[in-house]
Amino acid sequence: MAENVFDSSDTVRHAKPLRYAQRFVCDGPFQLELGGQLPGVTVCYETYGTLNSARNNAVLVCHAISGDSHVAQHDPDDDPGWWDIVVGPGKPIDTDRYFVICPNLLGGCRGTTGPGSINPETGKPYGRDFPTVTVRDMVEVQRRLVAHLGITKLLAVTGGSMGGHLALNWATRFPEQVDGVMALATSPRLTSQALAFDVVARNAIMRDPHYHGGQYYDSKTKPEVGLAIARMIGHITYLSRTAMSQKFEADRLQPRNVAVEFEKKFSVGAYLGYQGQKFVERFDANSYLSLTMAMDLFDLGTTPHELAKTFARAHCRWLVLSYSSDWLFPPFQSRDIVDALVANNIPVSYCNVESDCGHDAFLLPNELPVYGELMRAFLANLTGAPLEDAIQPVPDGLGNAPTSIFHKHRVDYDRVVELIPDDASVLDLGCGRGGLLARVTRKTPHRVVGVELNEASVVTAVRRGLDVIQADLNRGLQAFADKQFDCVLLSQTLQAVYDVEGVLNEMLRVGKQGIVTFPNMAYEPLRRMLADEGRAPKAAGLLRHEWYNSPNIRFLSIADFEDFCRAKSIRIHRQIALNTEKDIEVTSDPNRHADLAIFVISRP
Amino acid sequence: MAENVFDSSDTVRHAKPLRYAQRFVCDGPFQLELGGQLPGVTVCYETYGTLNSARNNAVLVCHAISGDSHVAQHDPDDDPGWWDIVVGPGKPIDTDRYFVICPNLLGGCRGTTGPGSINPETGKPYGRDFPTVTVRDMVEVQRRLVAHLGITKLLAVTGGSMGGHLALNWATRFPEQVDGVMALATSPRLTSQALAFDVVARNAIMRDPHYHGGQYYDSKTKPEVGLAIARMIGHITYLSRTAMSQKFEADRLQPRNVAVEFEKKFSVGAYLGYQGQKFVERFDANSYLSLTMAMDLFDLGTTPHELAKTFARAHCRWLVLSYSSDWLFPPFQSRDIVDALVANNIPVSYCNVESDCGHDAFLLPNELPVYGELMRAFLANLTGAPLEDAIQPVPDGLGNAPTSIFHKHRVDYDRVVELIPDDASVLDLGCGRGGLLARVTRKTPHRVVGVELNEASVVTAVRRGLDVIQADLNRGLQAFADKQFDCVLLSQTLQAVYDVEGVLNEMLRVGKQGIVTFPNMAYEPLRRMLADEGRAPKAAGLLRHEWYNSPNIRFLSIADFEDFCRAKSIRIHRQIALNTEKDIEVTSDPNRHADLAIFVISRP
Repeated sequence: MAENVFDSSDTVRHAKPLRYAQRFVCDGPFQLELGGQLPGVTVCYETYGTLNSARNNAVLVCHAISGDSHVAQHDPDDDPGWWDIVVGPGKPIDTDRYFVICPNLLGGCRGTTGPGSINPETGKPYGRDFPTVTVRDMVEVQRRLVAHLGITKLLAVTGGSMGGHLALNWATRFPEQVDGVMALATSPRLTSQALAFDVVARNAIMRDPHYHGGQYYDSKTKPEVGLAIARMIGHITYLSRTAMSQKFEADRLQPRNVAVEFEKKFSVGAYLGYQGQKFVERFDANSYLSLTMAMDLFDLGTTPHELAKTFARAHCRWLVLSYSSDWLFPPFQSRDIVDALVANNIPVSYCNVESDCGHDAFLLPNELPVYGELMRAFLANLTGAPLEDAIQPVPDGLGNAPTSIFHKHRVDYDRVVELIPDDASVLDLGCGRGGLLARVTRKTPHRVVGVELNEASVVTAVRRGLDVIQADLNRGLQAFADKQFDCVLLSQTLQAVYDVEGVLNEMLRVGKQGIVTFPNMAYEPLRRMLADEGRAPKAAGLLRHEWYNSPNIRFLSIADFEDFCRAKSIRIHRQIALNTEKDIEVTSDPNRHADLAIFVISRP
Repeated sequence: MAENVFDSSDTVRHAKPLRYAQRFVCDGPFQLELGGQLPGVTVCYETYGTLNSARNNAVLVCHAISGDSHVAQHDPDDDPGWWDIVVGPGKPIDTDRYFVICPNLLGGCRGTTGPGSINPETGKPYGRDFPTVTVRDMVEVQRRLVAHLGITKLLAVTGGSMGGHLALNWATRFPEQVDGVMALATSPRLTSQALAFDVVARNAIMRDPHYHGGQYYDSKTKPEVGLAIARMIGHITYLSRTAMSQKFEADRLQPRNVAVEFEKKFSVGAYLGYQGQKFVERFDANSYLSLTMAMDLFDLGTTPHELAKTFARAHCRWLVLSYSSDWLFPPFQSRDIVDALVANNIPVSYCNVESDCGHDAFLLPNELPVYGELMRAFLANLTGAPLEDAIQPVPDGLGNAPTSIFHKHRVDYDRVVELIPDDASVLDLGCGRGGLLARVTRKTPHRVVGVELNEASVVTAVRRGLDVIQADLNRGLQAFADKQFDCVLLSQTLQAVYDVEGVLNEMLRVGKQGIVTFPNMAYEPLRRMLADEGRAPKAAGLLRHEWYNSPNIRFLSIADFEDFCRAKSIRIHRQIALNTEKDIEVTSDPNRHADLAIFVISRP
């Protein structure tokens, strides 16, 4: 009765034999980062798909704390894998295209050397004599495995949670061996809160009287209560508060009947008791200690300066994903990674996926249409063949205001692209689905980056082969260094920004030059609307909205912007006034005859 | 060395004798809510200040899970109390003015009958034979104590966290015995997440081999590890993630040296181990089980409908306080309480106090200037003597835009107050510091309520004797019933609202009539500014801001608003146009000659 009672978000199922597992032995002595050595390390791993003749389609998947090598089903009769929704034929990590490798981690308990392995010196399991292993040691084992498979450069390394820590370690230490990293729901190091939960979990295990100092393998009793308590704590942290409410509120006091020796009064308690007990059947308490300690010791730094230094070497292409309701690896930590990459001019796309599913979101299908598509697109970009043609501009529909403006074609795009200096590095603030940026990539071989808030737009832009960072312009661009870009664009976005001065200041700090375009409120027909009719101005295109529902919340004229530049010591290099109704450039009294202004500005 | 190593947010200190504790015995048999009875209940309590001759200045303080009767120091030589910052001479709960009573809870272990008390039937401590007690039972004990003290009506009941549950129970069951409730960091029932932590804590205690089925009182060993683990989990939930970072990041791997038998590798671990061990010295594991279970069973409902029904009887005056970073009793739960009160037309003030301190915030001095002042003001309001004169309007400074507009006096206020029907109930959206609302209270004896986002403004308005609910207008007024108010005001706020249509819809749903005032963008001098100078209009007062930093993000004229009302089937009952420069009412072509419009509207 205990089976399938709950829809579980476990990363692996009962400890069944891994039918497709292969083994590789790293010869010893294997030196460990914190001292000590192992006489040799056996790695249990599984592979999917075929390594191509160029040996450049390999994707390494790093599992999280309770995972194993069985990332996906090998055939329909095979047991489910822990990431079947992501890995498989036609899936985001498409095993028809890529060769996938998933090894069990050093210190684990599913085939790779760990505390439950036999210590050749004693002939008994290591237990607590198993030396402290680190994420670096785990990566070293993986590196030898990858070399053994004849691969000198991985197309990508990916992992979520602790698996993300391994991916980060790969990229910061062996960037020349990795084309790209996909880091999901991870961090440069744990928050103190996440660390605290691990400490309590370890205390529960080690102070369980059945722990027997770690040598419980031959005992009748094992630290099962301690490990179950640890797992229960973990489970709470994997779910968001909202997800827990959705799961357990309806039958709060009517738990389903499960055979567990823990409190079962409340639905959530019965669930946790069941999860705890099930975990004990398939996981080794000492491995839980080893793996959590490795995660807790993982530390790439905390200040922006430290992180920027750590990531300076990580010159591959990055996709960083966080999940909005993840409180164990909260989004700001992913943003810290992104900021460190940005500071080093390393190409990165980032999305904080909107989700109610908490930390588990990266294992669940709910938001797969967003994060799965981003992974699929990113891998395609790594192979040099974006999913959508980046050269032909896809028309930006009117529904996607404010970064889309005109009915037919974007006349202003042509002018903006002309104004961008040759060979410039370019940052586009509010890049939408990348229509303008895709054109810019034709002009410059240098770094081209977009910033956009809308999630769907970010996905489209990445599918076009672009690097896009999801961010709110109103919160600043602090990750970018002074004058990091030759040219920063703010196309049809200024009038929708609340903190105008902040955004322009940041733009001119980050860019040697800025190109700003905005609708001119002093265009003659608009003036007349207020002056003669006494009504708030409206027009076709960007200004089609009503006063009460417009995304445009700032109203300025060309003259206002000139005044602003004067007052704020902003230098105007060039200004172009367009009448988009007539499709002409305006030279006489532009503040009256132009409906759109383009300014090239800088701050000395 | 273990003493004073950490700055603790513990609610009580080591189990020292309570020198000022008094005892009262409720005669038995004492029937319990869930069945069973106790032969009698001893209550340990402390009192502060003096009961006045009218016996109407008593404030009952309900402690949280690990608290006791010692809420404050009695004299400088006395041990610190757990709420010294709030209770004492001159403090928010001023013992020079109020008579404070604080009893230890039923089921506790600090003098009041609990699982550690002797069961007269066996001559031994109850242990797990202690019957399940509920918040209702705890309140019944308190009620008998209050009667014993000769008090028929309490001025206020207050409590935070689980103490808040008791306050809620008092008010929903004995509203005629309570003038006011101050409920801090509490909820109508626990979230599933909070409940889950309690379940894991109880599992840790009950599955500790030294628990001995609850009869450990005479054993050499007690379930100390289990209780310590429970306390560690609790401690994490009391702190915010930010607070934990601030506390433990600097010396993450250099913990202070403490003598504890738990993992001490990380600073946060040493702290938790210390807290866990210290707790064991002063708290009984069975009491922890009893009190958490009472908290977990506490349930006033979850849907708005259920809650509205529960709170229908709670006709006293309320102050509800939540703390922005509290994730154990998250702010939305306090808002649920407020909504249920609002639905019943029960007077309530609410503030979600901005804080980094998590659930513990209500015990800490950081935000005392806000929540302490609200408590002080609320108690003063209960006695009928607000701290600030509500009749004399305090000038709303210009710095406090957008709800303050003119330099000198608010000419529009006079007109708005005239327009309010006699004897109307009034809701003021964006009430600021209550300047207008204070005038309205002179006109109507009926219910007058303000809604305001700014925290400091809420404090001032409550000091003026008003009931103010902190809320963001853009997120709706769903708690208010259809046509709940005779008149809803939106004074000089419309032009700063993003979701104009949503706010107006809600206003006209909630109010039989709405009074809207806004600046008229088609005022002749403003028209000319755009038409002749080609610049965004500006003026003195509300429109003094620049186009790039104005709080005003909606630009409309009187004609625009008339069009809007027509299009949205809003009936205009009356419209008044003012020229505030000349201080006159405008009758001829108001859309040109008026700078301020007042509309009385409704939706059939």
